[in-house]
Amino acid sequence: MAQKPSIPKGTRDFNALEVAKRSYIMNVIKEQFELYGFQPIETPSFENSETLMGKYGDEGDRLIFKILNSGDYLKKISNEDYDSKSETRITPKISEKALRYDLTVPFARYVVQHQNEIEFPFKRYQIQPVWRADRPQKGRFREFYQCDADVVGSTSLFQEVEFVQLYDAVFTALDLKGVTIKINNRKILSGIAEVIGAQDKLIDFTVALDKLDKIGEEKVKEEMRGKGISEDGISKLQPLFSLRGDFGTQVKSLKSILNTSKVGLKGIEELEFIDAAITNLGLKTATLQLDVTLARGLNYYTGAIFEVAAPEGVKMSSIGGGGRYDDLTSIFGKPDTSGVGISFGLDRIYLVLEELNLFPKTIADATKVLFINFGEKEALTCLEAVTKLREHGVKAELYPDDAKMKKQMTHANRRNIPYVVLVGEEELNSGMYTLKYMKTGEQQKLKLEELLSSLK
Amino acid sequence: MAQKPSIPKGTRDFNALEVAKRSYIMNVIKEQFELYGFQPIETPSFENSETLMGKYGDEGDRLIFKILNSGDYLKKISNEDYDSKSETRITPKISEKALRYDLTVPFARYVVQHQNEIEFPFKRYQIQPVWRADRPQKGRFREFYQCDADVVGSTSLFQEVEFVQLYDAVFTALDLKGVTIKINNRKILSGIAEVIGAQDKLIDFTVALDKLDKIGEEKVKEEMRGKGISEDGISKLQPLFSLRGDFGTQVKSLKSILNTSKVGLKGIEELEFIDAAITNLGLKTATLQLDVTLARGLNYYTGAIFEVAAPEGVKMSSIGGGGRYDDLTSIFGKPDTSGVGISFGLDRIYLVLEELNLFPKTIADATKVLFINFGEKEALTCLEAVTKLREHGVKAELYPDDAKMKKQMTHANRRNIPYVVLVGEEELNSGMYTLKYMKTGEQQKLKLEELLSSLK
Repeated sequence: MAQKPSIPKGTRDFNALEVAKRSYIMNVIKEQFELYGFQPIETPSFENSETLMGKYGDEGDRLIFKILNSGDYLKKISNEDYDSKSETRITPKISEKALRYDLTVPFARYVVQHQNEIEFPFKRYQIQPVWRADRPQKGRFREFYQCDADVVGSTSLFQEVEFVQLYDAVFTALDLKGVTIKINNRKILSGIAEVIGAQDKLIDFTVALDKLDKIGEEKVKEEMRGKGISEDGISKLQPLFSLRGDFGTQVKSLKSILNTSKVGLKGIEELEFIDAAITNLGLKTATLQLDVTLARGLNYYTGAIFEVAAPEGVKMSSIGGGGRYDDLTSIFGKPDTSGVGISFGLDRIYLVLEELNLFPKTIADATKVLFINFGEKEALTCLEAVTKLREHGVKAELYPDDAKMKKQMTHANRRNIPYVVLVGEEELNSGMYTLKYMKTGEQQKLKLEELLSSLK
Repeated sequence: MAQKPSIPKGTRDFNALEVAKRSYIMNVIKEQFELYGFQPIETPSFENSETLMGKYGDEGDRLIFKILNSGDYLKKISNEDYDSKSETRITPKISEKALRYDLTVPFARYVVQHQNEIEFPFKRYQIQPVWRADRPQKGRFREFYQCDADVVGSTSLFQEVEFVQLYDAVFTALDLKGVTIKINNRKILSGIAEVIGAQDKLIDFTVALDKLDKIGEEKVKEEMRGKGISEDGISKLQPLFSLRGDFGTQVKSLKSILNTSKVGLKGIEELEFIDAAITNLGLKTATLQLDVTLARGLNYYTGAIFEVAAPEGVKMSSIGGGGRYDDLTSIFGKPDTSGVGISFGLDRIYLVLEELNLFPKTIADATKVLFINFGEKEALTCLEAVTKLREHGVKAELYPDDAKMKKQMTHANRRNIPYVVLVGEEELNSGMYTLKYMKTGEQQKLKLEELLSSLK
């Protein structure tokens, strides 16, 4: 009968301290989202399969968790399909719903479905879990939270500017100084591909370029050659490998490469606008940096591309990312609705704050005072005081059983409860409460009102 | 290509106002949970199937959402099983995980799995969604939140007392006055069954009794006769049908029925303890009431049974429930661990607060001020002010495009933004900001510092 209990791989239980730390991060993000005018929405954990399938590429489709239909679900399969014993044919017949894979596609679905109730430009944020049937590994889970803010319904570059500020504001509020906000632009990447005559190899080219940090210049060039990019094209890329200096200087070098590409120059113009505005407004603790190797979800990004790197020295790469997508809602029947958004990686930010010891010390403050239970009569008197303390916002508890004193004191210690109150016969008779500070052992006899004011 | 977007039946999208209202309820509950010493945990959305299956009866098993295995999941089915085309044989082969059905079973699993890290008595709360493949109907959804608080590891009745107080505290904090906390005890039901010689018909008997309010005394008796309860037994029940007066008086009548049943008298004793303590401590806005017809999840309740009824006149029955279970963790290999807990029905409480117009008016307060965009130069100046306001905690936005003035003002109106700021050429030159109060149209020209202090 008894089973050894466990949870599915890639999932997690969170204890009180972990919940408190996670809530702390989410609340900081939420607060900044709202200061920036974003409003919360929530969507269901599962969507109709057709909403999700085909939106994340073949690999994505494989990683989507599908939900089995209820009831006599095998009845819906034709004999022919059944006899094929083929997942491709059978899955759509026995599963009509799937757990959401990210928050972006459900958001696009939401915008189209509710377009008549929404006031555009629509600034929404969403903090909810997503699920992926990925191979679990350190820092990668099958259930994890995404924290997204997006605006749809305007092409204004002021939004990109505000998202850079928002990243800075959140990480500053988390006391995580020195993050780098990397920025690129899909139009720059298209421009480069155009200039080197590899428009049709945009993805191969950006995938190779994206590895520059990891494998170095020579290997990147080799990979490009392997993908059929011409020697002439690769030589035109040379200035890319030696971009130096600040944002402005780098943009200038890029401009010289892209001067024959209309789309490339448009990308330059957008970067210049964002750089100028941010230079003018200033950032509190983050740095904005151009990174032409940045590609991310190239599939749907059409303009700015963002990624945030943790402060130098921290063992963690990206802790956030985002970008502009001009056409996401058209898959659900609403074309010409530009959107731009960013995401925060909760689990990774958690690890970084842990590594740098940046969680506030008060985060685990739970129960402040435990009333020791000496028996029914005493306990009833204690419960009156406990009730009063709670009404005044003091987290207070009565130990439920009249266990041995030592056991109850140990309980207070193990739970880091800083105070205990003792009400024995003497206190019952005198109407006093003995308050003991656990750390020093110091004791005071107090009236109820005094107890209240010392614990408040 | 374009699909008409929709969501699965029984699920919901929540807009900003709905999220705010739901968060308000959850935050009030959370705050009281923490004042009472409960600490949060979270468990994964899906569990291994064997953790959930067989814990909720056959009907429950059917209503659990199963997740399809990833990859070549059909390969694991033997030809014999496959040829049977039987859901009973095939489901366990193609699905190893399932969405949680409630928070109680995952909590029991958590307690057993983490028993060495947990300090008992363990007071935990958990506010997370659960999923049931139930037929959707008004007020019943396939995805909904449960808000549970439980203590495991102590049999003390002080916990039942505190849960009554906790219900009172939460509903008082929500300004929902006049709820009735109904209490019963499984031991009373067992005692009655014993007295009327129907121990083996405990479930039939309680199911019939549970309908007293709906179908009346005669029909209940008829149903009992139908289930084979003797005429003599039914006549012994007579006092049950005419329980009158306050808690104490009712308990006295019950005691006279149960005086030959040891277990029944133990139930009486427990009720008397809770009643005496609550009478002594007092409740703020709720009433405690004995209800011997209350059965609820009889399967695992072994002591107190709670249910909360909305104030009279409200179209809603139960808005919360709970009870004591002495043996929940033994299914996972940890016997003799008594638990007791209560749950709040978020969706139903939401409907009641809506019906009684009890949501605070400020709940929807989002962006406070919108800066009108008259062009790039003006907008950049606005963004400086917007940045400053946000740093001081004022929710501020810049309209992203230099659209027609009327369009921007309409946007502010539709979003209930109370103030707009106008920065045109004149303001640019003078360094002033024109603040307009949308309701009255009143305008003031202010310096940045003045703007800040009037909006803070």
